[in-house]
Amino acid sequence: MAVDFQQLAVEGVRGLMPYQPGKPIDELARELGLKEADIVKLASNENPMGPSPKALAAIQAELADLTRYPDGAGFELKKALCNTLSSDAYQVAPEQITLGNGSSDILDFITRVFVNDGDEIVVSQHAFAIYELVARMVGARTLAAPAKDFGHDLDAMLALIGDKTRIVFITNPNNPTGTWLTKDELTAFLDKVPERVLVLLDEAYFEYVDEAEYPDGIQLLSRYPNLVITRTFSKAYGLASLRVGYGISSPQIADLLNRVRPPFNVDSFALAAAAAALSDDDYVAQSVAANKAGMQQLTAAFEALGLSFIPSVGNFIAFRVPEAMGAMDVYNQLLAKGVIVRPVANYEMPQYLRVSIGTQAENATFISALTAVLS
Amino acid sequence: MAVDFQQLAVEGVRGLMPYQPGKPIDELARELGLKEADIVKLASNENPMGPSPKALAAIQAELADLTRYPDGAGFELKKALCNTLSSDAYQVAPEQITLGNGSSDILDFITRVFVNDGDEIVVSQHAFAIYELVARMVGARTLAAPAKDFGHDLDAMLALIGDKTRIVFITNPNNPTGTWLTKDELTAFLDKVPERVLVLLDEAYFEYVDEAEYPDGIQLLSRYPNLVITRTFSKAYGLASLRVGYGISSPQIADLLNRVRPPFNVDSFALAAAAAALSDDDYVAQSVAANKAGMQQLTAAFEALGLSFIPSVGNFIAFRVPEAMGAMDVYNQLLAKGVIVRPVANYEMPQYLRVSIGTQAENATFISALTAVLS
Repeated sequence: MAVDFQQLAVEGVRGLMPYQPGKPIDELARELGLKEADIVKLASNENPMGPSPKALAAIQAELADLTRYPDGAGFELKKALCNTLSSDAYQVAPEQITLGNGSSDILDFITRVFVNDGDEIVVSQHAFAIYELVARMVGARTLAAPAKDFGHDLDAMLALIGDKTRIVFITNPNNPTGTWLTKDELTAFLDKVPERVLVLLDEAYFEYVDEAEYPDGIQLLSRYPNLVITRTFSKAYGLASLRVGYGISSPQIADLLNRVRPPFNVDSFALAAAAAALSDDDYVAQSVAANKAGMQQLTAAFEALGLSFIPSVGNFIAFRVPEAMGAMDVYNQLLAKGVIVRPVANYEMPQYLRVSIGTQAENATFISALTAVLS
Repeated sequence: MAVDFQQLAVEGVRGLMPYQPGKPIDELARELGLKEADIVKLASNENPMGPSPKALAAIQAELADLTRYPDGAGFELKKALCNTLSSDAYQVAPEQITLGNGSSDILDFITRVFVNDGDEIVVSQHAFAIYELVARMVGARTLAAPAKDFGHDLDAMLALIGDKTRIVFITNPNNPTGTWLTKDELTAFLDKVPERVLVLLDEAYFEYVDEAEYPDGIQLLSRYPNLVITRTFSKAYGLASLRVGYGISSPQIADLLNRVRPPFNVDSFALAAAAAALSDDDYVAQSVAANKAGMQQLTAAFEALGLSFIPSVGNFIAFRVPEAMGAMDVYNQLLAKGVIVRPVANYEMPQYLRVSIGTQAENATFISALTAVLS
């Protein structure tokens, strides 16, 4: 009798549904027979500015070494990160850094290091889907605290922490809601989390936030030894194609995370481009400024269309589809017009769609497509 | 009292030692104050030919999309793989493919999918270090069958298979010994492995082997549903910097492997360059021919020096350091002369060093450095 390999899989994997990314442009082009150039993708919170010239130059310089393995230690990128992230108030050392194939790699590492079969993690409702996914893989349960106004209800999250809790995941700002926590809110929470419970503070959208009360997680590391910060080069730094992110923590925790890190998880081009992108202050500043203008363009349009939306400090915004229509309906009608946004039903927001901030022209295309679909 | 996070780590991670890659050129340059151009690295079984022009062109074409996430489904690369790997005897479908950040990713996936805490895997002595590493991470024990003439003793491996065995790892040819199994040896073994036990057949060096009796694992998939083949673009295809490999299996097993695969584990440049490299038959043919010539150059030198070596069908060869000297001594003296080879004490071969086949000039540099060190 033939073996059913599904039955041989470990329990956590049997029920696993892979992460659903935003629809790629070429996939939509194939499916609908559209030209790629006519498609606007606002589905994956990518930087719409196009590549950083410094990153491009770094990639060119790397081509001669195409046949060579990457530097598994990431020496140059770690050095560049320490230079950029250190301040008078807090010095970052290379031993505190864990490099990831995107910051999502770090989410996987921390779970593999600290979470056993039967343990629990705590997240907020509407949190990034990967947290639950990595927990499931190791056989852990995810406890989600109901959100408050779409943001983290930190008291509700605290109440879920029990003996089996190994990690609490905090996203600041949160994706896909764009909500954020102040420094006072966050530190009041961190003060109450038992030190044996790790806190993963996901700051993937850190560079976009321009709020006086928004905390820099790295500045909190000296007070909270159980804290791990993650950031990414996929957003404001414009390197989503190359998959590079990082974790910052105490050296002891970084040593543990690096033990489960595959030795070459970040490739040579990613290492070089990320180090170069860190030095391209103009690119990041322009990206953030363009994002701010694009956010105003979209919120003005939502208001004009009478649509409610969740105020966001990220490079994306979630809006509510009028009750008369289904969000998947609107999503599909936008696709037919060559505009890709992101359904968020899997984030318990079935009546919402998330749209990334694009260029002024992309935003205009989206607004006019949405206007046509809703009318 | 401060928390010791090491004590909070899961058991398998606590004793984990990360994989030790070959020493990078820039690291040696920093340590010894040498110029990078003066260093010869023959430590990581990289392709010494320099980049494939087709791969370089594919990378250039990808630069405009630097800010975009990769195609998580790897549509184009899977299509190219199916075209290349299919034959009249066996058709490969995209549903059978799992893409990896190097083929080592697939070793991790299969372990996460099928191996529980307390289970066992079976390997050969002198097997690739990553097998034991990924097993440890999930809390599994590794049983290693003593080698026969440095190669797999398949009967001894069979004898280790028990109720707790979930995966047997076969490497053909094996790294770091360069030994290989014939089709008859392999199929006689596969006939006896219970179908509930997965067999991971690691063919990272497949393209280099030019032996009539050497089997193509893909041709065996229809007979053995428990078989998973892995191959890589890091060796003969010359893309080590980009980290791309793959698994081929039944669609059911590939579906399970893809559930634990991070959605963007292979980046856009890797996807594009790998698809292009597959079409560059000349590059692979030249690489294989140069490897054959280089292998003769090295074995002739070993014979002239009176050194014993293990005959190898890969792009590397292990030689025995004379008893009067320690292998680490010779390794360090070679380093001082700007030649990086690979110690293999961690493969239970403390008196051996592994050297990758380089260009004719690199091989000559190595030979003259080795001659000087031994004299």
